[in-house]
Order: sequence, then structure tokens, then C-alpha cells
Amino acid sequence: MKKKIVIIGGVAAGPKTACRVKRLLPAAEVTIIDQDSLISYGGCGIPYYVSGDVSDEEELRSTSFHLTRDENFFLRAKGVTVRTRTRALAIKRREKVVEVERLDDGSREELSYDQLVIATGSKPNLLPIPGADLEGVFTISDLHQAIKIKERIAKGQVSRAVIIGGGAIGIEMAEAFVDLWGLEADILEFMPQLLPRLVDWEFSRMLENHLRAKGVKIYTGEAATAIEGEEGKVKRVVTPQRVLEADLVVMAVGVRARSELAVAAGLAVSPQGNIVVNQRLQTSDPDIYAAGDCIAVTHRLTGKSGIAPMGSLANKEGRIVANNLAGIPTCYKGWVGSFTLKAFERCIGATGLSLEAAKAEGFDAAAVTTAQYDRAHFFPGRAVIPLRLVFDRPSRRLLGVQGFGPMGDAVLARIDAAAALLLQGATIDDVSQVELAYAPPFSTALDALNAAGNVADNLAAGRLRCVEIRDFLNWMNDFATQPQWVALDIRHPNEASPMAEKFGHDRWLTIPYIEIRERYRELPADRTLLIICDAGTRSSDIQIFLESVGLPNTLVLGGGINVIRRIGVDWL
Amino acid sequence: MKKKIVIIGGVAAGPKTACRVKRLLPAAEVTIIDQDSLISYGGCGIPYYVSGDVSDEEELRSTSFHLTRDENFFLRAKGVTVRTRTRALAIKRREKVVEVERLDDGSREELSYDQLVIATGSKPNLLPIPGADLEGVFTISDLHQAIKIKERIAKGQVSRAVIIGGGAIGIEMAEAFVDLWGLEADILEFMPQLLPRLVDWEFSRMLENHLRAKGVKIYTGEAATAIEGEEGKVKRVVTPQRVLEADLVVMAVGVRARSELAVAAGLAVSPQGNIVVNQRLQTSDPDIYAAGDCIAVTHRLTGKSGIAPMGSLANKEGRIVANNLAGIPTCYKGWVGSFTLKAFERCIGATGLSLEAAKAEGFDAAAVTTAQYDRAHFFPGRAVIPLRLVFDRPSRRLLGVQGFGPMGDAVLARIDAAAALLLQGATIDDVSQVELAYAPPFSTALDALNAAGNVADNLAAGRLRCVEIRDFLNWMNDFATQPQWVALDIRHPNEASPMAEKFGHDRWLTIPYIEIRERYRELPADRTLLIICDAGTRSSDIQIFLESVGLPNTLVLGGGINVIRRIGVDWL
Repeated sequence: MKKKIVIIGGVAAGPKTACRVKRLLPAAEVTIIDQDSLISYGGCGIPYYVSGDVSDEEELRSTSFHLTRDENFFLRAKGVTVRTRTRALAIKRREKVVEVERLDDGSREELSYDQLVIATGSKPNLLPIPGADLEGVFTISDLHQAIKIKERIAKGQVSRAVIIGGGAIGIEMAEAFVDLWGLEADILEFMPQLLPRLVDWEFSRMLENHLRAKGVKIYTGEAATAIEGEEGKVKRVVTPQRVLEADLVVMAVGVRARSELAVAAGLAVSPQGNIVVNQRLQTSDPDIYAAGDCIAVTHRLTGKSGIAPMGSLANKEGRIVANNLAGIPTCYKGWVGSFTLKAFERCIGATGLSLEAAKAEGFDAAAVTTAQYDRAHFFPGRAVIPLRLVFDRPSRRLLGVQGFGPMGDAVLARIDAAAALLLQGATIDDVSQVELAYAPPFSTALDALNAAGNVADNLAAGRLRCVEIRDFLNWMNDFATQPQWVALDIRHPNEASPMAEKFGHDRWLTIPYIEIRERYRELPADRTLLIICDAGTRSSDIQIFLESVGLPNTLVLGGGINVIRRIGVDWL
Repeated sequence: MKKKIVIIGGVAAGPKTACRVKRLLPAAEVTIIDQDSLISYGGCGIPYYVSGDVSDEEELRSTSFHLTRDENFFLRAKGVTVRTRTRALAIKRREKVVEVERLDDGSREELSYDQLVIATGSKPNLLPIPGADLEGVFTISDLHQAIKIKERIAKGQVSRAVIIGGGAIGIEMAEAFVDLWGLEADILEFMPQLLPRLVDWEFSRMLENHLRAKGVKIYTGEAATAIEGEEGKVKRVVTPQRVLEADLVVMAVGVRARSELAVAAGLAVSPQGNIVVNQRLQTSDPDIYAAGDCIAVTHRLTGKSGIAPMGSLANKEGRIVANNLAGIPTCYKGWVGSFTLKAFERCIGATGLSLEAAKAEGFDAAAVTTAQYDRAHFFPGRAVIPLRLVFDRPSRRLLGVQGFGPMGDAVLARIDAAAALLLQGATIDDVSQVELAYAPPFSTALDALNAAGNVADNLAAGRLRCVEIRDFLNWMNDFATQPQWVALDIRHPNEASPMAEKFGHDRWLTIPYIEIRERYRELPADRTLLIICDAGTRSSDIQIFLESVGLPNTLVLGGGINVIRRIGVDWL
């Protein structure tokens, strides 16, 4: 008798499981059910569909060889039966059947299974505020919503959009609205920064500065308390600080697992609502597996379990479930949280933990910020790519890397290499030594990632002492916060002197890098010197020298003015 | 008493060691000696200086903050004494002195050391053929040679260049001559392919095809037997097959260690002439360290020791030597052979071993070739990036990855991630699972590298059987080589039908991918079916299906027509 495999959910993990299991067990009878009419689409492409980069929603549902991944495709090409507009009502584990309802005629039926896969994904969080149900308030939950948003814009019904949520989707949507449709777009983020928890403050600020320069208005640390409308249509978003006019609102405040079916079936579900699975992605019922946004995934660095709603993980998990269904024992060892994001002409990416996240998880963590070139400094088109490396002090273990740079794959290359290092518990010494490919058009002899490893090594060994960029900026705003501090600007006089003119020669000392060894006696021994250069590299050189001549009281501005400038602070 | 550290060699590993050791031991007296007047330059930038991308040689010797790295810079900024045009004549180990000669006046002197570092680099190989000493025959050995080449071109003295050697430097020089100066350039390579040993045949052929399209003439498997001149000036290069006119010849046929000093001092040197060091980069004399092109480096995958002449390694090694000099025990665990190369509008890169190299090293190795998109197939500007993954069958250990694609950092990102995986002995399962950063503008939900890991897994498990591209092309040239083979082209009829028209419906069967499950009974059971699609993905799907219906005799063309087309083969 043919093995019957039923898969609930047809977007990412479900179809991946189905196709793979059909390859491993060609004789199996594989059925996907989904309540939607549209399946197997690239949900991560929605912002690019809305922007117009992707002209037709069908492109999000097509293969790379231009076939639409619909019921017909799955049946004919893959031998997989897909039943769309078919809702799973209940899993009857004892009978091993799924009770389903056909949405078109309301008829019900029981589908028997030998093994079941739950790939029900996630649903967007909705803020419990008045007006969330007004016409014109959208979530980015599925292709239908995206089609409606685009239609509305194309019909000229939108001129001002407010996006609630400054995560990746919110930022991508802001770009879509502004860059290609010329709309006004505001982002409201409840937390004090964009991409909260994903990157540290400096990196979110570099991103924020670029978004502002592109015309996106950003309000961080500010909550939407109400959405107001007229005649049922959205008109404005209200916060404690202001009222934002809006004829379209996107609510992008995270997602939560769709696990009602699993709960009702008595499967183990975490307090947060994610389906509990073992490393083989098997639920508490040995005949039921689960994959994708709906499961609780272990974070490799923290050991904690939680939702990991990424299309890239759903695909990996789907393959693992298929292997296990086919009797090829395969384990998923967990995720690390790699991401990348295009924002107009910049990109930002990270893997692992930010310093803030690492500390919140109880690590004795430290971080360094660098600002090296992506390719040889003499090669045309080079750019500075600030990186931030987070590590665990006691074990020297790498915990995460963040990067920011011009749009392109330079930051991706470093993030991906770091992600590969994280996979196997690399230390900062491994980061120093990893042999990245080098040629002047692509990288520097000592790659920016290797350099970040070296700087981390220096910090860990106590050979480098830094001032946090945030503390430095606070001091620049109000010197009284740290009266004993004084800047030592070692850049070229063209850059350093105007700062001294502006802030006073008692606050802003200027000695060019190359003259320090000759002139260090001019420096005050009773002050804390904040050594400032473009990238932090020369400053760290000078810090060591000054210590050797009896001036140990110094701090380096890691990442230097390169980072400050990208944050958007310019005093001149 | 101050510790005296003398470093012989001032290009890459030497200056890196000097600066780092001075930071670790600020009180040490650090001296670099070099016979050249120009030091601390980016030798890898020479092709870009010749091309004009880098306008002035001084840019190759300057810091990223625009200071020239000359004697004055090292002394004032770093506290390091540099003695240029000073040749080390002998190392007297018992007395712990280096005997040196000042080239400007011939005077001699002895420099005492507590610890010595040999960073004498490499020198270019010279072919022992007549005419190698003619005026106009150059090696890319130092900045002086590069300056002379550029002067000669700028003066209009060159219209046809012949490059002997199809390695990275030869290819970069060809681009410099053709792209920016409009010269004619021929590459002669003794081995049967460009980048021999570094990449497998398919990948060198994709590169070769692009170079040819850009006007570079390439002769592989062809040796220069003589260089001929008139009045002492080069005029032509002679091979057994032809005579190539040339008014400039570049000999780029590899390098060998400069280890004469070490040999004369009785230090252990390998049969190939590389200075033997332990993992701390200490020579057979505990007070003498060595780094850079002159040492024997262990290959992490093969365990073999040999020259590893890369600027990126020299920098890493210099840092390690400095650590050890300063009493911070640090080990260099060896190299894996990562590289990347720009060639006009394409790039090629690799890390680890090619299949050919792996087999030559005795591995029971296998390889898969893929041709996936670098970013979401619906995202504008996406491109196919063929990858090749080499692995060890018994252990499933990753041995290497090769990549080819449009100029940019997309290939670099995959190579760098693979290099990081190699660092820690990853398996193909790790390649499948590594969590690369995903967003549609940067990658695909299942990244091309993850996909290569999956394909390798299928091959390893016997779920995929491939035909080598080379064997396929041989068969296309002469069907008699494999009379039992027949192509099964599953692409769209627009692509497949013209092939059937051309080669005959008995040699070239066409059934679209989506129709195979309905029409497989049309297929001959007594023939070997070569399943052909664009990337190999659909073919492997079909291979499994056909086996399940009693047609096990099939082979997949890995990488598909995407790779064939890039190789430059087009039958229509």
C-alpha cells in the first residue's frame, strides 16, 4: 500500500517538504492542503512586488524556468496533489486523519495520513489599538494583501503611508513606497531604534540616517496608540507625540506561529505558541512533523527556542522533514539569525547576536566596530564597510557580526563568511585567520572581516580600550558629562583643525598621526584622551604608543569618523 | 637593554611583522632591511597600476589615509627603522648578526639581532628558453618592472603583448593590456587549461570563453620554446605550433621562494627551496622566524607543505610571527588556497581543492556542478552563478568550491563562506545547512551554496548520477563515442525542438519537464538517457522519477545548458 503523506500549508516549508519527499519516496502519495488559492510564493518578494521591481505577482509564484507553481504544476511536474481553498479543521491523531473543509462549497472530508507535516506558517501580529480594522490598514501577511496595496497605489489612492514597525519588512515597504511610487512614508517604531535586537545602535543609526536622506520620516521610541479614519477609511495614525496623516497604514510588528491546529490536536506547543519539535523536526506525535514559521527553533548560540520566521530556514527545514519522512535521519541543529536587507542605496546585514542581545542573554560579551574598505584602497569604487564583531570574553567565541555598506554584495560576503564561522563555534582567532579570497577588485590583503577579528583580539587582550560611539556623541553634545575628557584628533590638519576651531583647543587637540611620536610631550597627562581618526586603526596604534611613554589614560573611537559620518552627525 | 628585532624584507610580511611587533613590544628596536628602494607596496595591485585603474605607483605604496609608506613613514608613524637599498649578505647565527651591504656605496656592516625574521618573499620563475633576456621581456616581480611596462605602453612602444602563463597574474595582465590600452594580447599556457590546478576544466573554459570574447587570444597546451628579437629587442614568441608577434612579453610562470640566505645560514629548507617553519612560523633556529612567500606552508586539506605566495597570507603570517616574537604563542594552521580573480566583466574564484587536484592528492573525491541564480529569480539584475563543489566521498568532507559569475561580489560571498566552512573541516551537510543571509536582492531562499551542498548530498547518496560536461561535449562532437546515448531535452520546446531538428529525433528526444510523468512511456528503455535542462535541477527531478517507473538508465547534465553556454558551445 502506498504511504500517504499529508502536508498542511502550501507556502514555503510545505511545498519544499512535498517535492523532496516525492523524490525520496516516489511511490508515496503526497498531498498539500492550503486554505488559500495562491500557494508556493516567495513571500519575501512582496515588497519588490509592491514597489514594481517585480511587475506581476505571478513572478513570485513561478519557477526560475517560468512555470507558475500552481496545483497543475505540482501535480504534473512533481506528482504532488495540492488542494487549495481547503482548510484543515482538525487533526484526529488516533484515527490518523485530517478533517478538512472545502471553502468553495463548505463540504467536509477526512484525509487519512500515515505521516503528517504541519507547515502552517505564521500570521502577522496586530496591535490592539483602536482603528486597526479600518479600511486601508494592511499587514504583509500574504499575496492578496500585497495585491490590494499595489492596486490602491496604482489607482492613485495613496499619497501618504505610515508603517508601524521598523523591522526588515517595514523598511523594505518604506523603500517600495518612496523609491518607486514617490509616496511619503513614515516609519513608527516603538523600540528606541530600527531593527531592534538585530543590530546595535550604531548600525541602526547608520541605516536610519540613509533612510532619512531618502525622505523616509522615522520616529523611534514612539508607539502608535490609535489609528483614526473617516467613513471607515484610514486617515491618520496617532502617537503620544504627534498625529501622522495617512491614507495607507502597514502594520509590520512581527509575526506569531499559526499553531491552533496543533494545540487542538494536543501536540506540545511552547508557551509562546510555537510547535515543539525535536532536532529531527518531529512533534510530540512521532507521526507528525512540523517545519517553517510555526515551529520553535533552537538558537545555536543561546540555546533558546523560539520562532524563526525566515523563508530561507523554512526551505532548509522542509528538506530535513522530507529526509526524516523517508527514513534518512537528519537533524536540524538550529539557527543563528543571519539576515540582510536592502535599503535604497545601502545594505545592512548581520549574523548571530548583537552586543545588546548577547548581554541580554547573559553573555559576558564585548564588541568592536571597524570601518575598513571593502576592496583595495587604491581600487576604483572601493567603499568603507563598517563591521561590528561581537564575542564572548571568557571563551573568545564569536557571537555575531554586523555590517553596513553600499548596496551590493560586499557586506553579504562578510556576513556569510561569519555565518559559516558561527556554524561551528569559531573563536575570534578563527575570524583573524579565515582565508577569504583576495584580489584588489574584491577585498583587501587583510580582509575587513579578518581585521575585525584582529581588533577583537586586541580588545580581548586588553591592548585596546575604546569609547562607545554613543558615549562619545553624548559628550560632544554636553562636555560636562565627562569633564576630564579631551579629544585628540590625529587626522590630517585639514580635517582636524576646523574641529579644534569650533570646539576650542582645550577640548579638541590636534596632532597629526605621523607627528605623535615627536610631539606626545604636548599632551596633558591628567586628562583622558579620546583618540580620533577615520577608522580607528591609527588611533589604536597611537593608544599603544602613548601608553608606552606613560600616557595610559586614552580611549579609541572604534570605527572613527567614518562611522560618525554615516550616523549623520557632522559638526562642521 | 632593548630587544633588537631585525626583519629582512620590506614588502608584505616584513612590514606587517614590524608594525605589529612594535605595537606589542613598544620598547623593541625594530629594523627592516630591503635591497629595494620601494617597500611596503601592494604587489597584487600591479596589474591595476599597469592598466591605469591606479594612476600612480605611489598609490600602491600609500596607506588608506594617503601617506606614502616609505622609510620616513615607518620611522615617524610606527617607530620602525627601515633601511632600503640594503642587501642582507649573510646571517651569522652564532654571532646573531646579519651582514648587510649598502647598495649605494658598497659599504658593509653587521646588524646584531636578538630575533630575526626572514621575509624575503619570492622571485618569478624564468623559463630556460632562448631570448628570455631580450629587452621587452618582463616578469611581474616588483614595482620597478611594472613602472617600466607602463612607461613603454604609454610611450606607444607596444601594440602586441604575449603573456607566457595562464595563471591569475597572466590573466590580470591580459585584461590590463586589452581593456585599458587597447593592445592585442595573447596568453600562452603550457598546461591544457587556464588556471591549471586551481579550477576544474569547465570553470577554466567559462573564463577562457569570456576572455576570447574580449579579444584575448589564448593558446593552451602550448609551450613557448623561444623568444626571438631584433637588435636585442623582443619581436616574437615561438611555439611548436606557431609564431606570435610581440613587442612586449610578460613571463608569469609562477614564483619560487627566495631562500638563499636561509640556505647559506644552514636553516632547514624544503627540497623545493621553501624555508621550513613550525606552526609558530619559527625556523629550525629558535631565534629566527620566517613569513610570506619564502616559507613552506602546510595545506590544511592535503597536509602537504609548499609555497603559498599570496599577499593575504603574508599579512596573516606577519601578525603571527609578531605575536610569537612578543611572547604570545600563536599558531598558523595552514592555508586552503582561496583565490578570486577579475577578468573583464566576469569573475572567477575558488577555495580548497579542485576535483583534479583532490584526485591527484589521493582523495576519493567527487564533484557536482550547479547553475543557480545569485539572487531571487524575480529580482532585477539576477545572474546565474555556476558553482562546483568538491567533496571526499568516504567522509563527506568538503574539499573545495569553485565559482564563476558576472563581475561583482556574488561569487566572492559564496567562496568566502565556503572558505570559512573549510577552516573547520565542514561536511557537505554543513554546506546544506549553513545559514547564509537571505533577502531577494542578495540571494535565494535556498542559497546557491546551500543548493550545491544538497546536490552533493544527492550524489553521495547515489540519488544523482551525472555525465561529465566534457564527456557530453565529446559525444556531441562524435555520437559514435557513446552510441547507446540519447539526449532527453526537457526544456521548453522553443529551446529543445531546434536541437532535435539539428541532431535528429533519434539522438535528441524532447519532452517538456512538465509532461514527463504523462509521456515517459515514449522513452526507449534500451538507451542511456542524458537528461538536459538549463541548470540540472529539473533533470535530477526527472532522473528520480524515471528510475521509479523502471527507467534507471539515465545521466544528468549537471549545471545544464547554463554552463554549456558559458563555455561558449552553441550548436544553433
